[in-house]
Amino acid sequence: MPADLLADYRAYLDCLNRRAWDELPRFVHEGVEHNGRAFGVAGYRGMLERDVEQIPDLRFDVEMLVGDASTVAARLKFDCRPKGTFLGLDVGGRRVCFVEHAFYAFEHGLIRTVWSVIDREAIAAQIG
Amino acid sequence: MPADLLADYRAYLDCLNRRAWDELPRFVHEGVEHNGRAFGVAGYRGMLERDVEQIPDLRFDVEMLVGDASTVAARLKFDCRPKGTFLGLDVGGRRVCFVEHAFYAFEHGLIRTVWSVIDREAIAAQIG
Repeated sequence: MPADLLADYRAYLDCLNRRAWDELPRFVHEGVEHNGRAFGVAGYRGMLERDVEQIPDLRFDVEMLVGDASTVAARLKFDCRPKGTFLGLDVGGRRVCFVEHAFYAFEHGLIRTVWSVIDREAIAAQIG
Repeated sequence: MPADLLADYRAYLDCLNRRAWDELPRFVHEGVEHNGRAFGVAGYRGMLERDVEQIPDLRFDVEMLVGDASTVAARLKFDCRPKGTFLGLDVGGRRVCFVEHAFYAFEHGLIRTVWSVIDREAIAAQIG
């Protein structure tokens, strides 16, 4: 049921935006993989916690969203101020706007595999 | 009808892989935009022709595909040998593998808006 999966996905983003890490197992499969790395929920949580440490005002906003019975694809927009180095770029607290295009394969209603590409070039262009 | 849109999208990729540029108006809206640039079909064709000039063995392969009534999202895989500089990187004929995550908004069954992010960092890592 795609509608449910999209609702689940939006609830997942809301969980991230609330930093409600303890709720992650409601959305993320215990065997979750991210860009080919087998994180597990604990590792996935660690990645998100590091992201938020680097970018305290990180907020996940959906610009485009499409899904079927087992897959969700999202174009996410970010408007934030990474504190120091982000993706190897010395952002140093400047405001940057960029997108992430992410695909999520679900298993039993949980995010099992994530493939994500961030538009790093846009950030590089903004910090000169 | 999502199934039709996905079939149309696969036919569009087949058109690109055959370099059948004259067929583009069957798939691409005359007002097509790509990453915020209003190309039109002629400009879009020009972009594709330049891509193929830079990458003669360019081939669009779908790894993940999801769609609804008006949107398609695709994770595309490339395994090719760009001749010279590609995305500002001096590839110089070396074989590189990378992905593109693209979202397509359709209008009247034609591709109207494309938002694409290419994993440029993967290419940079492969050419050292």
